[in-house]
Formats: sequence, C-alpha cells, structure tokens
Amino acid sequence: MSVTDELLEHNAAYAAAFTGPLPLPPARGLAVLACMDARIDVYRVLGLKEGESHVIRNAGGVVTEDEIRSLAISQRLLGTTEIILIHHTDCGMLTFTDDAFKASIQEDTGVKPSWAAEAFSDLDTDVRQSIARIKNSPYIPHTDSVRGFVFDVATGKLNEVV
Amino acid sequence: MSVTDELLEHNAAYAAAFTGPLPLPPARGLAVLACMDARIDVYRVLGLKEGESHVIRNAGGVVTEDEIRSLAISQRLLGTTEIILIHHTDCGMLTFTDDAFKASIQEDTGVKPSWAAEAFSDLDTDVRQSIARIKNSPYIPHTDSVRGFVFDVATGKLNEVV
Repeated sequence: MSVTDELLEHNAAYAAAFTGPLPLPPARGLAVLACMDARIDVYRVLGLKEGESHVIRNAGGVVTEDEIRSLAISQRLLGTTEIILIHHTDCGMLTFTDDAFKASIQEDTGVKPSWAAEAFSDLDTDVRQSIARIKNSPYIPHTDSVRGFVFDVATGKLNEVV
Repeated sequence: MSVTDELLEHNAAYAAAFTGPLPLPPARGLAVLACMDARIDVYRVLGLKEGESHVIRNAGGVVTEDEIRSLAISQRLLGTTEIILIHHTDCGMLTFTDDAFKASIQEDTGVKPSWAAEAFSDLDTDVRQSIARIKNSPYIPHTDSVRGFVFDVATGKLNEVV
C-alpha cells in the first residue's frame, strides 16, 4: 500500500467527523506564507482553526512571482489584509547554492532550469528580503501588517525578525 | 491587538507543549500540493503528523514554475517520491477570469501583471492539467505516484480525479 493510499484511509476518518461547510473568505483576514518544511504544521503553530487564514507554502517560504499572484488574489478578491511570513531553523535552503543545484540538474537531465532555486545563507536576511519583495509589489494593496518570523524547530517558537 | 499578535499568544502555548526537533527530510517521502484555501487544514485532512510530508500551497493548488522549483528541491534534495494534489469545491479560482482580474489590477494600479492568474472553470480538468505539468517537467524525477483529488468543503472528503 502506498503512503497516499494509507492517508486516504485517514481522510475517511476525518470526513466521518466533519462538520459542514465554512465560508470561502478567511475569517481572520489573514494570509500566512511559510516554508513547505514537514515540521511546520501552520494551523497548530499559530493556533488557527479551519476557515481562518489562507496558507501559502513553498521551498523556503520565499516570495517569487507565484506568491505575489496568490497574495494578490488573497487580498484583492478574498479580503485579507495581514500577512505573516515564516522561515525556520535547520532549513534545507541553507544547505546548497543555486549554482550547484542547477548544475546538478543540468548534469542529470541535460536541461538547466531558467528559474532561481532561491537558496539563501541567512534566515533573518531572507525574511527581510521576502518582506521587501511584498512591499515593493504594485499588486499587493495592504502592506501595513507584513511581519516575518523564524520558527525554531527545536522549541516550536516563532521569533520575530525586525 | 492585531490578529497576528493574537496568534503569537497561541504560538507561546504551542511552544510550551512542544517536544523536540524532528529530522529535516519528510518521514513519509511525500509532498502535498494544495490550494491555499483557509478551510483545508492539510495535516488534519490527511492525518499527517509533523515531520511526515512537505506541504506546498498557493491560490488554486496549481502548478507554475515555483511549484516545479519546490517539488524539484523536495525530490532531489530531500528524498520525496510521492505527490498528492488537492483542489477543492467552492474554490475562489472558479469565480473570475484571468483577463478580468488583470484588467482590474491595471485599472487600480496602472500596471498589468505579466503573470497568469491561473483561474480555471472546471476542477477535475485543472487537477489533470496540474498532473500533466508535473509529468512534463524535466526537473521532477519521480512521477509514478502523482495523484490528484478534489476536497469537498461540505463533507471533508477527498475525491480522486481520474
């Protein structure tokens, strides 16, 4: 049995205890952008309930064109106004460089990606970079509350980057 | 008090009960790509525990360049081999068109986004489109188990798209 099949059995149990549909717009007017890291259960880390916040995630929790797309849709069509950014300690993005990763793909497949891998060498600096990219986008109307944090995978604590 | 400040109090409670660091690579060798919709608590929907699966999310749960980047990092550097895609009923992406959304941004800001908004008109068709984009990427080595689902926000059930 694949992992996917096993998780579908979990879903059957989830559905059995499920209570009705919630409204589409996030009830707390919030969008969270976090790293895809398996150890960050965003709803539990922030004490969020279903229906309260958009959750956007990718490798590193970085801001590229696609996160601007998601945040623009979140704010312009679904009414969110606050943004929380979450990077974390022991992140895989600290362990390689764009050049080396792309060279390894080129060696393996013969094709070099045209995109940046978005590796970084300092967590706080990259959180600030993500905030700067959001504040510099013409497409994100609400940037008064864009706050960035580093999640400590050893303690479960969010430490704010200032 | 902002929503963000309130959630930071939740995080203090989470950290107080937190039990030690887990390994970086996802224990179940899985990456989930889901819509950012607030109602989809991916860990609960799939019965995932912390540390088990990468979770990638964006508006629609679509596959653009940035999801290929995240999946390439997930598989090539952190050992995942299975992919689960999750779209859902009552999705905001069904309620607008790229042309209208981009025209409204242009009208509001004077600048038209160079990116696609990735709106879609049929859930099953777009899940298949996402699977096709992954299988057609030269950068994703493991595509034997790429399965797509529509999460029903009224029942909590994942229905597989075939």
